[in-house]
Amino acid sequence: MRFQAPKGTRDFYPQDCALRNYLVDAWRRVSIRNGFEQVDGPIFESLDLYKAKSGEGIVSELFHFEDRGERHLAIRPEFTPTLARMAAQQANALPRPIKWFCVPNLCRAEKPQRGRLREFWQWNVDILGSDQPVADAECIFTAVDLLAELGLTPQHVRIKISHRQTVRHILAKLGVPDDKMLDAFDLLDRRDKMEESDFKQAAQKLGLDEYRVLRFQETCRRKYPAGDLEHMKRSIGMNEHLADLEALDRQLRAFNIAPWCEYDLGIVRGLAYYTGTVFEIHETSGALRAMAGGGRYDQLVEIFGGPPTPAVGLGMGDVVIADVLRDKELLPENVLPRPDVFVIALTDKAGEQMTGIAADLRRKGVHARFSYKATRNLGKLLKDADTARARYALILDDKLAQGQAGLKDLAAGTQMDVALAEVAGRIK
Amino acid sequence: MRFQAPKGTRDFYPQDCALRNYLVDAWRRVSIRNGFEQVDGPIFESLDLYKAKSGEGIVSELFHFEDRGERHLAIRPEFTPTLARMAAQQANALPRPIKWFCVPNLCRAEKPQRGRLREFWQWNVDILGSDQPVADAECIFTAVDLLAELGLTPQHVRIKISHRQTVRHILAKLGVPDDKMLDAFDLLDRRDKMEESDFKQAAQKLGLDEYRVLRFQETCRRKYPAGDLEHMKRSIGMNEHLADLEALDRQLRAFNIAPWCEYDLGIVRGLAYYTGTVFEIHETSGALRAMAGGGRYDQLVEIFGGPPTPAVGLGMGDVVIADVLRDKELLPENVLPRPDVFVIALTDKAGEQMTGIAADLRRKGVHARFSYKATRNLGKLLKDADTARARYALILDDKLAQGQAGLKDLAAGTQMDVALAEVAGRIK
Repeated sequence: MRFQAPKGTRDFYPQDCALRNYLVDAWRRVSIRNGFEQVDGPIFESLDLYKAKSGEGIVSELFHFEDRGERHLAIRPEFTPTLARMAAQQANALPRPIKWFCVPNLCRAEKPQRGRLREFWQWNVDILGSDQPVADAECIFTAVDLLAELGLTPQHVRIKISHRQTVRHILAKLGVPDDKMLDAFDLLDRRDKMEESDFKQAAQKLGLDEYRVLRFQETCRRKYPAGDLEHMKRSIGMNEHLADLEALDRQLRAFNIAPWCEYDLGIVRGLAYYTGTVFEIHETSGALRAMAGGGRYDQLVEIFGGPPTPAVGLGMGDVVIADVLRDKELLPENVLPRPDVFVIALTDKAGEQMTGIAADLRRKGVHARFSYKATRNLGKLLKDADTARARYALILDDKLAQGQAGLKDLAAGTQMDVALAEVAGRIK
Repeated sequence: MRFQAPKGTRDFYPQDCALRNYLVDAWRRVSIRNGFEQVDGPIFESLDLYKAKSGEGIVSELFHFEDRGERHLAIRPEFTPTLARMAAQQANALPRPIKWFCVPNLCRAEKPQRGRLREFWQWNVDILGSDQPVADAECIFTAVDLLAELGLTPQHVRIKISHRQTVRHILAKLGVPDDKMLDAFDLLDRRDKMEESDFKQAAQKLGLDEYRVLRFQETCRRKYPAGDLEHMKRSIGMNEHLADLEALDRQLRAFNIAPWCEYDLGIVRGLAYYTGTVFEIHETSGALRAMAGGGRYDQLVEIFGGPPTPAVGLGMGDVVIADVLRDKELLPENVLPRPDVFVIALTDKAGEQMTGIAADLRRKGVHARFSYKATRNLGKLLKDADTARARYALILDDKLAQGQAGLKDLAAGTQMDVALAEVAGRIK
């Protein structure tokens, strides 16, 4: 019988898994130094949890099933509902602000395509319990810290920031009536996938005359540099209703990340859920999907039965960021752990002691390997040590009787006799 | 609306997640130094994959579902089928022996009880492509290395080892006919859950007379020390068919782990799948479930379409080992990452620079936190630093104008003025 990995999922052989670890370890390291604490939840949740956040429409995008108790369950397609549930459950016991990160595997029952798979890993960073723009900025800074950690620069990537309330005011000023506001957001959200003529037609349906359709289009297509809101204010001709963005802009300067960011009022991030700041991270050419997205969601914890809890967060999947790093040649070539030492036995007597000597080194924290082959040929075994990318070879021969072995530095090519008891210390 | 984690699953709040990381990090560290490379596979597989290994009976123990293409899928209840599938797919490209480890989350649709949950994490260690007992011993050594790494000793835990073929010969010698052999294994497997009278009755049904029933019972209840097979040979009155166990025994001595091990011919590990050595790790009192189990499965890769590939491996879940460590008071008290420094602003002017200074430290790899509170009260903020278990407080005041700040060692209570540019270096 022959089996394959299910459609849209991946097998991680050692090289693939090492690359995933390279990314996940960077996510963890950066999260921790930014003061976030790791959490996790179940791989599946009650189906109702996802319906409560996203409506009935979500069901077709989920892998869902019933357990023997006829509970309706679904594999998590995102972590935020779990996070909001956990925060709601322990709301009174948790110190504010709550700063959590996690690295869950998530599943979506959608058609696999470039940048989108049915199972993926996602880094989540969230700050709950603060409505201050410093929290929004700290999330964005943490993303920038991660991008820089992986070797990316403002030349490679762009953080595109918008604000739901600001855009609402701009749209109102343009003449979009309240009852068409959601349609207008929807149009903004889909703008990049539409032909210009279709866009104009849809904009007219919002009740805008030709001039205002052009203004609308310009507003949602132009970008404004972060770190100085004056450009944007002049362009949109609006000075009020910008307090949040002004405070955020100050914080982007304070965190010293304005050069990574720009304001892009066309960023919407879907219709539900977000209440204020929204942002996406894109590769500068714009050829790929968003590498990450996030924003402020001040009502979700409350929806799940918790007290009013302002919140802001971001999610970054493992697929697009890896594509970008690969394109920019920033993925390290070989991230498999290197053995410290490869133990080689040149006599049968030494062969009997080989596993014990390797075992002793391992107990002392040394990454030690040995060959499963019966050969006593030094050249062949040194070649195996080299293939394994070992730093040292420990060569066991008749000198073992005196408690000695040869320690060969495989990069330098030098070799010396060392007492067995001192090998671990020498290698470290 | 109020939601809870589904039955049998866990929420990992920061302390819980840090404990899981403590365990998972130890699994990874020990695997790597023992020369294993990490792999992973999809969270769900084709339902047929599990049926192929375990038969139709497995389906009721799985969370299974259909995707929109009407493919039958199931969340993985164990990793071995995925491992065997991956090894079969790449059999010719992989260097032998294949030494893989992984740390997947797994789900079983069974009734939650002490030591058994519906979702858990499991450490897997496997060596494929070698039929030598050194591979069996290396798997067992790796488990011992992990147990020792976590502070356990042979006083706390026992590796119980048996061998399918040896037991088969013993049973044959006792008079169990070939067509009753599976029933006899089944009886061995269930022996600890049976009343003595039920056990005897079942043994008689195998065709054994009263004397042989007693011998059978004795054989499967007695334990024999590892490191010297003579005890067992004398007791079972058999000298042949022990070549595998003799070679394994030599390796247990070579790896210096015989004091952790004993032979227990009552260990079966279920009816299917295993072909030679089998073993379980138990807490010495025997009060808890097995902490880990494994053995040799020489036919599985072939079942999944690969070439003949002898294999041996083990699995250890996160639940029972954590229970044992907790019972023995070996779980560290607080494994949450400690902040290197807590940045404190004593003036509003310093407050404006606080996030930028913290950001700069983070970019340099320093775990830096700051308070979201508006207060400028040194005592209150030092208390927050203390609650966060920070090693240092960095106190920003008017000296910032000269590029200086106060660096307070929170354990020693000492404080000195430091140039901002030198803070990261000082802390590291």
